[in-house]
Amino acid sequence: MKPFSLNQIAITDGFWAEKQRINAEITVKSVYERFAETGRFAALKCSKEPHEAHVFWDSDAAKWLEGAAYLLSRKEDAAIRAWYEESVQDILANQCENGYYNSFFQVKAPEKIFTERPSHELYCAGHLFEAAVAAKQYLNDDRLLGFASRYVDYITERFMVKRDATFVTPGHQEIELALFRLYELTGEEKYRVLGQFFLDERGKKVEQSYDFAESTYSQSHLPVREQRETHGHAVRLLYLMIAMADSARLTGEKEMKEAVEGMFQNIVTSKMYVTGGVGSTHAAERVSVPYDLPNDTAYSETCASIALVLFCDRMLRLTGEAVYGDVLERALYNGVMAGLSLSGDGFFYVNPLEMDLTKTKYNLERWGINREYAAITQRVKVFDCSCCPPNVIRFIEQIPSFIWYADEQKGELMLSQPITSTLNSSFADCEVQANLPVDGKVSVKVNSHGKPIMLKIRKPAWCGVAFEGEENGYIVRRGVFNGEELVFDFAPTVQKVFANPKVRENAGKVAFTYGPTVFAAEGADNDVNLFAARIDKDCKTEVISRENGDLGLKLQVSAKLLAAEDLYSTTRPQGEPITLTLVPYRAWANRGENDMIVWMPEA
Amino acid sequence: MKPFSLNQIAITDGFWAEKQRINAEITVKSVYERFAETGRFAALKCSKEPHEAHVFWDSDAAKWLEGAAYLLSRKEDAAIRAWYEESVQDILANQCENGYYNSFFQVKAPEKIFTERPSHELYCAGHLFEAAVAAKQYLNDDRLLGFASRYVDYITERFMVKRDATFVTPGHQEIELALFRLYELTGEEKYRVLGQFFLDERGKKVEQSYDFAESTYSQSHLPVREQRETHGHAVRLLYLMIAMADSARLTGEKEMKEAVEGMFQNIVTSKMYVTGGVGSTHAAERVSVPYDLPNDTAYSETCASIALVLFCDRMLRLTGEAVYGDVLERALYNGVMAGLSLSGDGFFYVNPLEMDLTKTKYNLERWGINREYAAITQRVKVFDCSCCPPNVIRFIEQIPSFIWYADEQKGELMLSQPITSTLNSSFADCEVQANLPVDGKVSVKVNSHGKPIMLKIRKPAWCGVAFEGEENGYIVRRGVFNGEELVFDFAPTVQKVFANPKVRENAGKVAFTYGPTVFAAEGADNDVNLFAARIDKDCKTEVISRENGDLGLKLQVSAKLLAAEDLYSTTRPQGEPITLTLVPYRAWANRGENDMIVWMPEA
Repeated sequence: MKPFSLNQIAITDGFWAEKQRINAEITVKSVYERFAETGRFAALKCSKEPHEAHVFWDSDAAKWLEGAAYLLSRKEDAAIRAWYEESVQDILANQCENGYYNSFFQVKAPEKIFTERPSHELYCAGHLFEAAVAAKQYLNDDRLLGFASRYVDYITERFMVKRDATFVTPGHQEIELALFRLYELTGEEKYRVLGQFFLDERGKKVEQSYDFAESTYSQSHLPVREQRETHGHAVRLLYLMIAMADSARLTGEKEMKEAVEGMFQNIVTSKMYVTGGVGSTHAAERVSVPYDLPNDTAYSETCASIALVLFCDRMLRLTGEAVYGDVLERALYNGVMAGLSLSGDGFFYVNPLEMDLTKTKYNLERWGINREYAAITQRVKVFDCSCCPPNVIRFIEQIPSFIWYADEQKGELMLSQPITSTLNSSFADCEVQANLPVDGKVSVKVNSHGKPIMLKIRKPAWCGVAFEGEENGYIVRRGVFNGEELVFDFAPTVQKVFANPKVRENAGKVAFTYGPTVFAAEGADNDVNLFAARIDKDCKTEVISRENGDLGLKLQVSAKLLAAEDLYSTTRPQGEPITLTLVPYRAWANRGENDMIVWMPEA
Repeated sequence: MKPFSLNQIAITDGFWAEKQRINAEITVKSVYERFAETGRFAALKCSKEPHEAHVFWDSDAAKWLEGAAYLLSRKEDAAIRAWYEESVQDILANQCENGYYNSFFQVKAPEKIFTERPSHELYCAGHLFEAAVAAKQYLNDDRLLGFASRYVDYITERFMVKRDATFVTPGHQEIELALFRLYELTGEEKYRVLGQFFLDERGKKVEQSYDFAESTYSQSHLPVREQRETHGHAVRLLYLMIAMADSARLTGEKEMKEAVEGMFQNIVTSKMYVTGGVGSTHAAERVSVPYDLPNDTAYSETCASIALVLFCDRMLRLTGEAVYGDVLERALYNGVMAGLSLSGDGFFYVNPLEMDLTKTKYNLERWGINREYAAITQRVKVFDCSCCPPNVIRFIEQIPSFIWYADEQKGELMLSQPITSTLNSSFADCEVQANLPVDGKVSVKVNSHGKPIMLKIRKPAWCGVAFEGEENGYIVRRGVFNGEELVFDFAPTVQKVFANPKVRENAGKVAFTYGPTVFAAEGADNDVNLFAARIDKDCKTEVISRENGDLGLKLQVSAKLLAAEDLYSTTRPQGEPITLTLVPYRAWANRGENDMIVWMPEA
């Protein structure tokens, strides 16, 4: 299966069009300004004095550039264009003779180039290469592609030919998937070869690790083909899995495919939050042991949910299997979007599934050994380690590419995410009208340009309706399509979700979903102690508002508010009936500081 | 109410006699040997070279000396006597001309004496003074008392007269209560005055705090009479409250009594574990915000439970109210004794109420930012910060003094803890036969030497039987007692305990008690995933073994073992009926590493 180019698909209306509008008008500018204030763009100039820099700043700027390239191809904007232009020129002007570029190392520590595995050099390079792909593909600007070509030649020389770098594989994966993107854009073997080299060498021997971590942290404990149980830093893990999926697709290698399928299974059966969050422990931003999915201390980095979506996209290309569309949807509507404020300029890096404001503020006001780990209570405009904000920008612009996939050889066209949009391609022209996450009505018009095709429409995992022609999670229609309207109603209902009993933190608890959306009860809607509420086992649930897909989409759930005088009692606490109002989890913390709870104990 | 001297009460048989036997035969020797190995006793010699020392080591040795004094008065032992003698001589030989003694400061940093509020100098002095009280009272050895008198004179001169110490009140409370003990032993006003001074000055002005903490950490944020909501380091807090109770009793001051009663209420209504543990957060060993009582990350330091018992003892002396006997019992049978292995030579500093072995081992194997907080899985013989082990020694020897209290003026005699024992005093001779924690039968014989008295026997809070003559938690009998046998059966039953619904971590959960004992399910008895078990709401419970008060006291509880294939499902997980075996919480972790759970989710 192949995705379509962003030039061929346009989101035309509805929930995601609004998110793209905010991205273009607010987010891309706000992140640029915050990054400019903190010196991230100035750093690209590699000036000798004064030079503020950091080992991962280039990746922040590169992700912004990638997002800007998508955005500018969608909609010209003078300010964004000027910022883009200046940054590209700065990067080009400062590329070393030998092809190397890193605004930290070449100015601050040239003697340490390619000597510190943990220092994000190849990670930064990878993000610059992704920006180069975007610039070439969508702005027909091949300057960064030339930069990337020269840089890749240098990396190849140092890592594959001379092998005089002090390490073999990157401490933070990213360059592998970027090299495969360069290969797919240009067809040049050198990119694929280097990407494959970094994949093949990982875990073959003990490499320099971090001073606080063991080799599992960067998935370097085993050759990648032998990995099944997932370990370590969640974003590194998922970026590795993306590259493994790409490699398996490009080479047709079964062993690699089986490894990455096994790793995916390990995540979705024991290490993924109901929101599509991955990486439950703040301690080194890792996935933990199976079923360790705490709610209040959930790490669930925004970048990890983004990476899970990107991974599912790669697996759809590799396998076309519906499950990847389902998991992509879960992360897209929940884990990723919780990372961005409704205003478009506030970000969560960490996405807890429960907020006890009293305890959290108590801890945030303290520090060092006087503080327990606690997530922040409100989104902020920039972080010291600000990987998530520009990742959100480039991600939101890539959403159209998750809608349709095609296998032109086999004559297959697959609608994975029903989002209101148009597709114009030589294979087919399509029009989708959909109203998720508010309701499940979907209208699809396909013009297959006179040839017979197999049209596959993913039936969401939450959909309880039976359709004619269901095959492996898809509704399948075959024939020549001439633009006739196909109408479906996936008819979302409020569903109760239960976690596997092995998840200690969710014992006796229930979460609520409606369609793809996971809900949360927030203090702003419920003037009670949310932690003393218990959901009736046979609770009544109702959708009480459908104004928009975020705070206007509301559920009500019947519950009891328990009360007791004593701290301990031999009487089971009793309660008064109450009605809780729930809003989409992704929209929590947009109305000031609040208690919040996703997994609610049943009475 | 006054307690009796340890010379007057002897535990003669049963559960606590066995604990005292192990203390005398194993614990006191093992702790001495471990402390000798680590240099804590050698440090007392204050030799110039080589000199290993630490700011709190004197308190470790002093607590051991206090315990040894009690033990030697109960039962002579040549080795303990020799160790005691050598240490006392070392301390006396090295007391400075001016009365000062601290094996760290006088050797390592004499220029810093009384300049570092956080450095435990007065805390160490306080423990040496408690040892002096024990030595004088029980061994008629007044050498340490002379030492203490000279040292107190010096502290008074520096802190009250010249006021040239750089701080006013101790960073770690202890000396206040020790000074009140010295006063009560000797009647010398200087002790009471200095103790009262440290109480009165605390929180009156901002004092040097710790580099990681704010003034609440050492309860220095408000004058003590204004404190109600409890804050900060749990042991400091409770040692302060002990001194406040002593002060209120010695002066009759109402305001001080009301303050400390308010602080007690704050703890027992919102900050105490069901085990009598206090201090729920490992971050600076503090009490947290109300109702924040996590199970797996519970700190619940052994010393804090000991301090809670000592505090309740002081409140019984001040008020005679039964509630203090109930809370004393709760901490005594659970929080304190969980700190000691059944073998007598292993200690927990931290006492979690839940052990997920997989997660815990995963974290313990890591370090620094790569590790979440996790309690250790098995008791050890010594800690770097080893305050708990010698505290357990001196504590177990003091248990007889918690049995009987008397107000001779009013002619009242009160049995607070029914423990098999004899009391011989001019006020009354008594004999108690009791079988707690195994059963509730209590036989009491009192000889009031011909005078009429009021005999009050505390009816435990868990007792569901009604008795004639109940008054405020006591069974009251009046008259002249000539040794006739009074028999009661408190008839413990298995009880389900529920936490206040505001305790997030215990939502929908139940704990089991039988008499004073809180139970836990441990992996050693239950070959299932304890975290997937759900207690039936109408579960059958049964005491299946009463061989002894620890691992031989067993309950069975009917439950379901839930299972599910997927991580998330819209079907409420179902389960197979199982029977769980529960053992006393205090006896957990005596059979290797195990999963353990106190608060179990109901189905």
